[in-house]
Amino acid sequence: MDKLSNISKFKAACPYLGRTKTSTIRTLCTSVSPRYPSLSKLTEKAAQCPVMGHALTVRSSQMVAGYASLAGAAEFNKIPEHQGIKPSAADASKCPHASKAIAAARMAEELASAKKGKATKTSVAAAAAAKAAASSAGCPFHADANAPSTSEAKPKAPIPGGFNYEKFYADELEKKHKDASYRYFNNINRMASKFPIAHTGDPKDEVEVWCANDYLGMGNNPVVLETMHRTLNTYGHGAGGTRNIAGNTGMHLALEAEVAALHRKPAALVFSSCYVANDATLATLGQKLPGCIYFSDSMNHASMIQGMRHSGAKRVIFKHNDLEDLEMKLAQYSKETPKIIAFESVYSMCGSVGPIAEICDLAERYGALTFLDEVHAVGLYGPRGAGVAEHLDYELHQRAGQSPDPIKGTVMDRVDIITGTLGKAYGAVGGYIAGSPDFVDMIRSYASGFIFTTSLPPVNMAGARASISYQKEYNGDRQLKQLNVRNLKSQFESLDIPVIPGPSHICPVLIGDAALARLASDTLLEKHNVYVQAINYPTVARGEERLRFTVTPGHNVEQIARLAKAVDGVFTELGIKRTSDWAKLGGHAGVGVADAKPVEPIWSDKQLGLLDGTAPPVLHTGQKGVVDARAVRITREKFEDLLGPYVEPVAAVDALKTDLSLAAAPLTASIPAAVAAASAA
Amino acid sequence: MDKLSNISKFKAACPYLGRTKTSTIRTLCTSVSPRYPSLSKLTEKAAQCPVMGHALTVRSSQMVAGYASLAGAAEFNKIPEHQGIKPSAADASKCPHASKAIAAARMAEELASAKKGKATKTSVAAAAAAKAAASSAGCPFHADANAPSTSEAKPKAPIPGGFNYEKFYADELEKKHKDASYRYFNNINRMASKFPIAHTGDPKDEVEVWCANDYLGMGNNPVVLETMHRTLNTYGHGAGGTRNIAGNTGMHLALEAEVAALHRKPAALVFSSCYVANDATLATLGQKLPGCIYFSDSMNHASMIQGMRHSGAKRVIFKHNDLEDLEMKLAQYSKETPKIIAFESVYSMCGSVGPIAEICDLAERYGALTFLDEVHAVGLYGPRGAGVAEHLDYELHQRAGQSPDPIKGTVMDRVDIITGTLGKAYGAVGGYIAGSPDFVDMIRSYASGFIFTTSLPPVNMAGARASISYQKEYNGDRQLKQLNVRNLKSQFESLDIPVIPGPSHICPVLIGDAALARLASDTLLEKHNVYVQAINYPTVARGEERLRFTVTPGHNVEQIARLAKAVDGVFTELGIKRTSDWAKLGGHAGVGVADAKPVEPIWSDKQLGLLDGTAPPVLHTGQKGVVDARAVRITREKFEDLLGPYVEPVAAVDALKTDLSLAAAPLTASIPAAVAAASAA
Repeated sequence: MDKLSNISKFKAACPYLGRTKTSTIRTLCTSVSPRYPSLSKLTEKAAQCPVMGHALTVRSSQMVAGYASLAGAAEFNKIPEHQGIKPSAADASKCPHASKAIAAARMAEELASAKKGKATKTSVAAAAAAKAAASSAGCPFHADANAPSTSEAKPKAPIPGGFNYEKFYADELEKKHKDASYRYFNNINRMASKFPIAHTGDPKDEVEVWCANDYLGMGNNPVVLETMHRTLNTYGHGAGGTRNIAGNTGMHLALEAEVAALHRKPAALVFSSCYVANDATLATLGQKLPGCIYFSDSMNHASMIQGMRHSGAKRVIFKHNDLEDLEMKLAQYSKETPKIIAFESVYSMCGSVGPIAEICDLAERYGALTFLDEVHAVGLYGPRGAGVAEHLDYELHQRAGQSPDPIKGTVMDRVDIITGTLGKAYGAVGGYIAGSPDFVDMIRSYASGFIFTTSLPPVNMAGARASISYQKEYNGDRQLKQLNVRNLKSQFESLDIPVIPGPSHICPVLIGDAALARLASDTLLEKHNVYVQAINYPTVARGEERLRFTVTPGHNVEQIARLAKAVDGVFTELGIKRTSDWAKLGGHAGVGVADAKPVEPIWSDKQLGLLDGTAPPVLHTGQKGVVDARAVRITREKFEDLLGPYVEPVAAVDALKTDLSLAAAPLTASIPAAVAAASAA
Repeated sequence: MDKLSNISKFKAACPYLGRTKTSTIRTLCTSVSPRYPSLSKLTEKAAQCPVMGHALTVRSSQMVAGYASLAGAAEFNKIPEHQGIKPSAADASKCPHASKAIAAARMAEELASAKKGKATKTSVAAAAAAKAAASSAGCPFHADANAPSTSEAKPKAPIPGGFNYEKFYADELEKKHKDASYRYFNNINRMASKFPIAHTGDPKDEVEVWCANDYLGMGNNPVVLETMHRTLNTYGHGAGGTRNIAGNTGMHLALEAEVAALHRKPAALVFSSCYVANDATLATLGQKLPGCIYFSDSMNHASMIQGMRHSGAKRVIFKHNDLEDLEMKLAQYSKETPKIIAFESVYSMCGSVGPIAEICDLAERYGALTFLDEVHAVGLYGPRGAGVAEHLDYELHQRAGQSPDPIKGTVMDRVDIITGTLGKAYGAVGGYIAGSPDFVDMIRSYASGFIFTTSLPPVNMAGARASISYQKEYNGDRQLKQLNVRNLKSQFESLDIPVIPGPSHICPVLIGDAALARLASDTLLEKHNVYVQAINYPTVARGEERLRFTVTPGHNVEQIARLAKAVDGVFTELGIKRTSDWAKLGGHAGVGVADAKPVEPIWSDKQLGLLDGTAPPVLHTGQKGVVDARAVRITREKFEDLLGPYVEPVAAVDALKTDLSLAAAPLTASIPAAVAAASAA
């Protein structure tokens, strides 16, 4: 059994399994079926379930296809595609891929038999009755004698002559299975005390997480968690209403002030998520601005695309990061036409970075608004974590400290609208917009997706604010993250593993085939306890399927080295093309391109403290992440302010002091000298 | 100064005030301006701010209009509408409304002067320069000597010939001010330990909350909070990714299994909010189903309307709860045309209830899907809190206990798609859909708003699940809530206060005028410490403006009596029409309609335990809400399961036992005998 099919996941997903004793399932799961030796007893039973049986069959075919795509032509011919003669062990041993494909094909065949065996048993009845019977009696769990009413769980039959909704759903799902874009969610529980380790459905089964967007590990920062515990005690869970009706708290207002100050904009507004922020804001602007035209980067996120679509406004798509194409398209419209250039700073799936300053130039020339999504950049770039727009004027912003005032002429000041998330680098939940007061007030007053929804819980808002506040003060997490990214990228490169080049923290490794990408991901999880999700179409173009690695300041050097070795092994095992292979083919998706200019990372050696020796030291096994003395000190002083005048002020700060000194105590040695010096200044 | 304009709110909202010492602001706030005696020094200063000045002027004009609309014709003529002679005190004393209108008008006049005084000072400069100068120098906080760069905070000037975006935003806001639909958010911080009390921006300023949608007070339930504290310790804050990439945890899966079991449906899916659930689901269905037509109740929520619009599918609107109109419209389309009837169980702003069973009949007759929004009903109706659809077969569902299997032929089983929220009666955050496995899987696989967003934090999911689980077991909160609703409605009725009749827990009191509704709300807050938000257009039709009261099991009899008295006083003070007044006018919005049939409440006397004496006792001052012994006992046993195999299982349960016995100890006396008996069974 692979980790994906563990008991807890099944129990949660299936109401019938949920009622079966765990010990029984465990036994079924670990015993081989005497009839179908490639299957466990549980899989044999599951094959008979109308829901799981189908999924298992499709999944199994995908595995065959995946391995088959790797096998040589000679071996490929030996793989029984649908059914037929089982090749001998001697044949299979010729090629490891063919051998796996054959094993997978055998499993697929046995699955089909296990499924058919039962189906035949019930097919003696009349057509409709048989279908209904198969739905219940065909599944060992549905047929549970303790659940006499389960036959009613069958999908509603259409009325005579009426539309068959259930068939329609099944057909739509079949499309996803056929093009390998059907998604199987892994059960991943990231543990606060063991970051970056998670357990799967089985708490004892621990894996390293290499693809989460909790980019800095702020989801387990002690200042954040302490703030949340106290807020939870004081204000409970939900907000209890929309922002207009009982759901507007001091925590929301303080968070919005914090976000505005972060971006040095006069106003900000928080939404359920940045998906909602982008969707609601773009939909509202496009609807309201008379004759508005969107100029949209071709690689923009789904949330922006939806928002522009929902607005009903015209949308002109320009080539990714292509200023010439953008200008050519802008120039086709009169100056007085309202225009919005919508783009991102860090494009999350390839790690490329938008030319923000140059787009601002064009916007000013053609009278357009700039709408910049900094979702994958906030917390990570700039001396205060305000994003790439801040990073482009690093020293100016560093010198200005925590003043909320705009700095005239800086890129961040020139961007009209910045959107960001609280759910990635800040390790929280929610999204936001920042911009001029009237712009923000107009969205607040007109955007349906903001107005008519329960606001996020105060406890999460307080946690998000603590996280932003901490990261505004402390640069070490950002620096250490980028050092780790450099380390991983350089190890991959030295192993001829094809990293798609880019200046950001995203580390995409090209696989170039959907089934193969999933196999690579599954193999890393099963054999190496490495969790990295395969990124397939439609998230990336077909043929550009990849593994997308994210490295945090909490990953230690030994973990990084082990990861590089594991990926190298899986590349060999599955015969995945390496950089040199792509180079021979003339390059692909930026990999192996001849005479390509080396990409300069956004964080310079100087900004990382590599020139003056102030770079934070990397972690080794057994060391926990740094809780920075300076950030803690400042946060202690600021803690009453962080909690507002509301939450148990005196006792809370005292308790936190104790908690944090405990948390910080064993880390004193790893606090960089420069930070300590800055803290003394 | 009213409560709305308290210091903390200002400090959070305005970056400049945020930097001014609280003591300084407090002094400004409590000293009368020597020049403008109706204003505080702070208001005088705020009038000069380009942001606040405008808002204050508009707000002030609305107050004039509000009082003026109440004054008799003779007095009305004496009110200086824009500016002019101040009427003498003798004139003003004739009519309390005229007196207030005059005072408000004076304040408006002084505000305008305070604003103008400064504006004139800067109008000597050239037009554009003056505008820029006014933006900074005109505001005492923007002009802060410590912030030399603040003049850059001015809105970006349009390029010559370019579109003026800032003017456009301002114009759109002006429209909202003009039709009195501009929303001022109150700062309301609901305190877990003092439910239903909240504090405003000033922690010492406590108010009773009478309009929150934390309908059962589950936001402060100790089982929920304890579960959350432990989950927070174990898994930290954010989910760290989409459901597909690192953001799918055991907490999400367990919650979805809990929701599916609650509705006795095979599958469920959780979204960021029920706004997103409705929007994403309806948009996806309408896009996918070929030639789909929506049949939409005219009073459907904004989220459903957006979803249907976003789908691009045809939308036929039927009259609210009108089965004849619906059938007439359904009959116009062929049987094979895919159709979806979208409606709600409890309509939140009027408290009416959809005819669910009858709509299912029509759906079956015409081959339509039923999409039922139970957002304002889940947790509150049915013996397990599954909503009105469950309530309609109360005894069948009660007998079936906690089995997750559908009960054939029941209304809940006949509804195809149920959507609900975790953010209202369950006191948490998030929304969901429940239905057939393939339907849910199709939405999971295709809905952009589900796929491309960071999933909700595990901590909130665990809290939501604990809440549902608790409410599935314990009926007492639901019963007590309805008893309190009956009590308040009957007190209002005996005082001739116009309650819009309805069978649900919603208690809407008709005001019938936008400015008056806001005044009534403000007066209740300022004079009686009662927070109830005014509901104006576009949430309700013009002329049907109302106060919408929500009563929880945590409101005690003394609070209810005080509220009725306070509302009665405000009706007298502001001369708001009573039931008998509307009756004389022939009735309005269901109020004062001659020969109207009495509305039967959804919860019958029998279901409330009024016939056999098992009804839960109401609370009195000083008593805390019941933590039910049976629910606690069951939850203790189920607590390991609730936390999953993940969270500190043994210690957690032991600790909880202690915590809960402390919480429950003083309440033993108030646990209903029937519940105790059931607990022993």
